[in-house]
Amino acid sequence: MALIVQKYGGTSVGDIERIKNVARRCIATQRQGHQVVVVVSAMAGETNRLLKLVSQITSRPDEREQDVVVATGEQVSIGLLALAIQANRGRATSFLGDQCRIVTDSTFSKARIRSIDAGRIFQALKKRRIAVIAGFQGTDEEGNVTTLGRGGSDTTAVAIAAAMKADACEIYTDVDGVYTTDPSVCPAARKLEKISYEEMLELASLGAKVLQIRSVELAMKYKVPLWVKSSFSDDPGTLVCEEDQSMEDVLVSGIAYDKNEAKIALRGVPDVPGVAAQLFGALDGKAIVVDLIVQNVSKDGKTDLTFTVGKADLVKARDVVKKVAKSIKARGVETDDQIAKVSIVGVGMRNHSGVAAKMFQVLAGEGINIQMISTSEIKVSCVIEAKYTELAVRALHTAFGLDRQDAVAAAS
Amino acid sequence: MALIVQKYGGTSVGDIERIKNVARRCIATQRQGHQVVVVVSAMAGETNRLLKLVSQITSRPDEREQDVVVATGEQVSIGLLALAIQANRGRATSFLGDQCRIVTDSTFSKARIRSIDAGRIFQALKKRRIAVIAGFQGTDEEGNVTTLGRGGSDTTAVAIAAAMKADACEIYTDVDGVYTTDPSVCPAARKLEKISYEEMLELASLGAKVLQIRSVELAMKYKVPLWVKSSFSDDPGTLVCEEDQSMEDVLVSGIAYDKNEAKIALRGVPDVPGVAAQLFGALDGKAIVVDLIVQNVSKDGKTDLTFTVGKADLVKARDVVKKVAKSIKARGVETDDQIAKVSIVGVGMRNHSGVAAKMFQVLAGEGINIQMISTSEIKVSCVIEAKYTELAVRALHTAFGLDRQDAVAAAS
Repeated sequence: MALIVQKYGGTSVGDIERIKNVARRCIATQRQGHQVVVVVSAMAGETNRLLKLVSQITSRPDEREQDVVVATGEQVSIGLLALAIQANRGRATSFLGDQCRIVTDSTFSKARIRSIDAGRIFQALKKRRIAVIAGFQGTDEEGNVTTLGRGGSDTTAVAIAAAMKADACEIYTDVDGVYTTDPSVCPAARKLEKISYEEMLELASLGAKVLQIRSVELAMKYKVPLWVKSSFSDDPGTLVCEEDQSMEDVLVSGIAYDKNEAKIALRGVPDVPGVAAQLFGALDGKAIVVDLIVQNVSKDGKTDLTFTVGKADLVKARDVVKKVAKSIKARGVETDDQIAKVSIVGVGMRNHSGVAAKMFQVLAGEGINIQMISTSEIKVSCVIEAKYTELAVRALHTAFGLDRQDAVAAAS
Repeated sequence: MALIVQKYGGTSVGDIERIKNVARRCIATQRQGHQVVVVVSAMAGETNRLLKLVSQITSRPDEREQDVVVATGEQVSIGLLALAIQANRGRATSFLGDQCRIVTDSTFSKARIRSIDAGRIFQALKKRRIAVIAGFQGTDEEGNVTTLGRGGSDTTAVAIAAAMKADACEIYTDVDGVYTTDPSVCPAARKLEKISYEEMLELASLGAKVLQIRSVELAMKYKVPLWVKSSFSDDPGTLVCEEDQSMEDVLVSGIAYDKNEAKIALRGVPDVPGVAAQLFGALDGKAIVVDLIVQNVSKDGKTDLTFTVGKADLVKARDVVKKVAKSIKARGVETDDQIAKVSIVGVGMRNHSGVAAKMFQVLAGEGINIQMISTSEIKVSCVIEAKYTELAVRALHTAFGLDRQDAVAAAS
């Protein structure tokens, strides 16, 4: 008998028929002899409906009150799913974040979980009930309702699995696992059987929106085996787990891309200490998150500083940078929002050299100019012109041997 | 400075514009120098939408889980109203039933309030904030979400007013007060300035759906001055309060009617002890609520027993009665769902004789046959054929001097 935490996202509980389908899956898992805890999101579209009501009242909502409103989406889901399980002759009890003591900090709308007291959930399991838990929500020390931010139900599921020392945490979604890259861009993309937490983190933060980043961090910290599965099929899905030998034999596990960034270049910056600190301190002061930063070697005591920010922050960031440029007497500021970041990710890179070089060759071979480069232990990212994104992803996917076998066969 | 509890029903917060209107009213009350606590219902239609989701899953929902689902309606309302108050440069904090410790028993879907700890509400008021409280909901001793039944927000408001020793409890609705009778049936109906708790109780339980019965009982018990007002006008409304001299001078304060009952007659019942107990015990066993009961004097050791039940219970009740009839060897069972109960209510009856006789004369004068009669200290009810309902109400309204002065003048 295993203790299994399952999480179903908004599309999986998008309407009454789908909720009934989830109920059947939960019961089937229990009938296999397991204890089942199930975490659910709001029905697809519900959170947006609630946010729209809020936006009709004010464009700058108090986040405490906004959380009170949006937390209702998950509350409806747990009640309905518990009823659907009961209607299928199963036994179920629903729990709000507060009722299983999911205590968070008080950062409304993006709170972080501090502790969970799973006592009541264990009691329900002991009575052979399925525990149905509201994702995305908790309460702070004072009992105020908080929410964990978009995708927060993944985090709830992993945190519950960690607190209960579950044998597995299964994240059900509308895709049947983690792919080597986005199948809509690269038809030869292949589903991975296994991927390491670290690779998943890089892929998640690089724009493959399968799992919320924080949920992967938590799973890594507490070594929770994490499955990504489809609620619409019986495919075994992808296991996110600790690195093993088989993973290290593979050079590159996946290719990610991100078109939501823009580039800002500060030209002719005096190469003296403190300039970078001044610039990025000012950006941080405006809560602008900077992703890649590249500084070239200086020439004649001047250098160029280039970095990327989210497209939504571009206008705000440019204003900040222009002010700084004036005060440090830089030559000028250039911006470009027609860029994309393409990345290769793989723990195998640690033990193999030449991976980055191969990436540059592949891009060069397609006539794609590289504007910025950034590397970490297990990834290499290149910023290129946005229009080449799909071409770059497909070429890299083939070059690093990731294409599906049938796709390779068809091409040969 | 007074402490005022205001309650706004579903139609008063039916859409975003109306919520903004309620926000302005709350702020206006506060600007008059008062402390304001506001209790809100779910937006009109929301509770029904949620119940429909539940009914799509099962026709016999577990009431604990159903309460989890429907309690979200009020939660959305408090968040939105708090935001609307803030958007109007007011200060507001929302409270769920649980957050102001509205503790109820565990009778899901129609729980009764046991206690309220208003500490956090007082704290909010001290900071000059408007406290926005979810009506209709609470939690039981174990922290399960409960709801108080239809119209439960009225009860929440009165209970909060009692717990906080508020100076007044104002119930805002879509009518501007309590009328002498239903204006849609009797155009000469007049708004009452004042009515006693007891009269209001009789009117409420007799079918005038302005206030939930339990809220009036609570207000009477704790002597909370209760105002019924319209959220769409500035009319002073009706005050429900303790009886005073002026009320006693009036014979009849209002006329109520109820078309939702059906009559069951058990003919030729042996007039021996225990028969009534057996019959009504059996009905109670099936949770059928009996309203009026009339037993005639016996003749040749046989009597007739007649009583009324809610129309929805008629089929179930008839089955029970038929079984009992067989076992006690009664002559037969007759049912009739084409009836109406018309009642006159007034504390003045206590000190005046002849009120009932006058009612019978008025009905006789219109050629209306009386099928059953029931009286209490402050009301007389007659069961008549349903088709005469409106005629009876209008005739009684005129005969007891309740018609509006302008209506009287127009008629003369």
